[in-house]
Amino acid sequence: MEHISIVEQAKAAKKASTILANTSITQRNAALLAIADSLEANLESILNANAKDLAASKKTAMRDRLLLNEQRILDMAQAARKLTALPDILGNVDQMWQRPNGLKIGQQRVPLGLVGIIYEARPNVTVDAAVLCLKSGNACLLRGGSDALYSNLELARLMKQALQTAGLPEACVEVVADPSRETATQMMKLNTYLDVLIPRGGAGLIKTVVENSTVPVIETGSGNCHVYIDEFADLEMGLDVLWNAKTQRPSVCNACESLVVHEKVAKDFLQMLAQKNSTVELRGDERTQSIIDCTPATEEDFYTEYNDLILSIKIVDSIEEAIEHINTHSTKHSESIITKDYANSQKFLQEISSAAVYINASTRFTDGFEFGFGAEIGISTQKLHARGPMGLSALTTTKYIIYGNGQIRQ
Amino acid sequence: MEHISIVEQAKAAKKASTILANTSITQRNAALLAIADSLEANLESILNANAKDLAASKKTAMRDRLLLNEQRILDMAQAARKLTALPDILGNVDQMWQRPNGLKIGQQRVPLGLVGIIYEARPNVTVDAAVLCLKSGNACLLRGGSDALYSNLELARLMKQALQTAGLPEACVEVVADPSRETATQMMKLNTYLDVLIPRGGAGLIKTVVENSTVPVIETGSGNCHVYIDEFADLEMGLDVLWNAKTQRPSVCNACESLVVHEKVAKDFLQMLAQKNSTVELRGDERTQSIIDCTPATEEDFYTEYNDLILSIKIVDSIEEAIEHINTHSTKHSESIITKDYANSQKFLQEISSAAVYINASTRFTDGFEFGFGAEIGISTQKLHARGPMGLSALTTTKYIIYGNGQIRQ
Repeated sequence: MEHISIVEQAKAAKKASTILANTSITQRNAALLAIADSLEANLESILNANAKDLAASKKTAMRDRLLLNEQRILDMAQAARKLTALPDILGNVDQMWQRPNGLKIGQQRVPLGLVGIIYEARPNVTVDAAVLCLKSGNACLLRGGSDALYSNLELARLMKQALQTAGLPEACVEVVADPSRETATQMMKLNTYLDVLIPRGGAGLIKTVVENSTVPVIETGSGNCHVYIDEFADLEMGLDVLWNAKTQRPSVCNACESLVVHEKVAKDFLQMLAQKNSTVELRGDERTQSIIDCTPATEEDFYTEYNDLILSIKIVDSIEEAIEHINTHSTKHSESIITKDYANSQKFLQEISSAAVYINASTRFTDGFEFGFGAEIGISTQKLHARGPMGLSALTTTKYIIYGNGQIRQ
Repeated sequence: MEHISIVEQAKAAKKASTILANTSITQRNAALLAIADSLEANLESILNANAKDLAASKKTAMRDRLLLNEQRILDMAQAARKLTALPDILGNVDQMWQRPNGLKIGQQRVPLGLVGIIYEARPNVTVDAAVLCLKSGNACLLRGGSDALYSNLELARLMKQALQTAGLPEACVEVVADPSRETATQMMKLNTYLDVLIPRGGAGLIKTVVENSTVPVIETGSGNCHVYIDEFADLEMGLDVLWNAKTQRPSVCNACESLVVHEKVAKDFLQMLAQKNSTVELRGDERTQSIIDCTPATEEDFYTEYNDLILSIKIVDSIEEAIEHINTHSTKHSESIITKDYANSQKFLQEISSAAVYINASTRFTDGFEFGFGAEIGISTQKLHARGPMGLSALTTTKYIIYGNGQIRQ
């Protein structure tokens, strides 16, 4: 099968991005609505393409991620529709000031340009990522897992039609036609065209992209999140928060993976936990083992993001030891302290080095929608550019605009 | 010679960074003053170390960069002193809001952690970079050119003493003791310890770091800057601005390298330029050659940052062609339009995709001090994290702090 090359696709998308950067929000919202309309009107062709992918897929473990059904397609359309309600951020001048020589300097929000996304065989990401990019004025080059190729190409075809309906270049959305290992590697070196590369998927995918990409990467993802029960905790609240953080949706990155508990309340709290628990496998350190029935935890356990109904447990002698333990083992995602003590709450907030630090609340709130951003690109666990839940502004940058009247430098 | 390994140095600096992140600005300013005092009190030992480097250096071209004299050392001390006058940015909560469930979410400014800097044989960078990092609460791992090793180690020794005087860990500043090619490569893979890597130096160094680093990089640097003389320009102003941008300091990145001029004013403007000029080599396209005496410009010329008294010249038929030409050939650093026309000024501002876009002013103002930031880390030509002149905030990130009272996710 002869494909259009990824370089040609990137080139076309980059060109489209310069047009898109200068469109009005009215035009971009119209494109989002046209995409929603088109998805809703073409359920059958999408389901047919998806059926081909499902038939070809040999990995049963992947089928649920790969599967599209009416509801999932309508959800994608709905997400595109909802985005139109969010305000435009492009053109905003965050601040402007005047220099003694009369120069007026402002910082204006502009799109990144061309956003690359590498993801696994989840066709819903194709639409979700494309509409977030369009809303923020970015073209995108999408490279999904090869098992979802038919679905992705059909979704791309419909989105390109919708873009044309809205008077925008169809190359604003490009789905890589040849999702081979080679094109993934090529994409990581496309510095000429790509302004950023965002891997979305498991830890292995993210690691590969971080290690091999020369294009700047926004790392999203892994969460080995902690709940710390302080010696001054309200234990009932602690149990509610821990239980919510661990069990409400154990497969996601903001779920709690590890409990740290102060030795002064360890016996009471662990017994309350053991009494409540029948579903979570508890893996405790030595002291925990002497209090409740549990599996022994290894040092490896304390570094592990289970994404499952498993909880590691560590007993500490002080808040300092808790902070040290968490900063050493966490993935810098989300951590929470349960305490009634003012000084300890502030100490934890200041000294824990993670993207989101909570006092008396579940780590499960680390999420663009729960934070009130109205959309989510992902959750950044890196420190550059964006950290924590990313709203649309994470897909933008700024440029300095300077108004002069003939100033020259002395 | 047996060196402490770069991994050991990085590990120590990372540990120091967690202490530094929780210090007060009073402590950090005290360290800056102690460094300034120490440099001023130890001119002789610094000059002796520098003399060893100069004696060993075989590259005469590099001698001026390598050279320290009393004035240069006092300038470094003065830079450290001046930094103490700038306000602290750590701990600032840029914004805070309340969610319907009562969670209060704020975004607090925190240091990046451990900053790596790779630079050439300029010992002044050792102090300049270290004090910027300290002011913003970051530890640093500095890897200067091997030709400056004696100077750098002596400066590091004095800074470490000063840190101890101020009650801070001496490992806040680490100068790589073995600046070999191997340690440079190692440093680019130190993701475990380094939060960011900033290359400072020529295009070759920056390219090597961008291509090989798995640590996130902030790219600084190259500037192929344009001045566009619009058909509605004040030609006298245009000549003043162009002359300033080209000749005031031709070796720097914000100097103008290329003139773009509208054909309607090309003859008048180029003749004015030719009359004024006796020092700059002019390289023009075909139409330019028919108006003034100049060297023919190749396509290569239009992509070149000369950093010298050379100017490429292109005549265009429209502002659209000017914008297209500039966006194609520039390094996205700084560009300026000279015009009296309102619509053209706004069009240029909107459509030029560079870190700094000027109306009627010299590109030479793209500089942290000229922008009023009080300090400069460098000028970012990338889009992620920081774009354009970087003040201290470019060395920080944020973390979300969330105040709850037992909230769990439904």
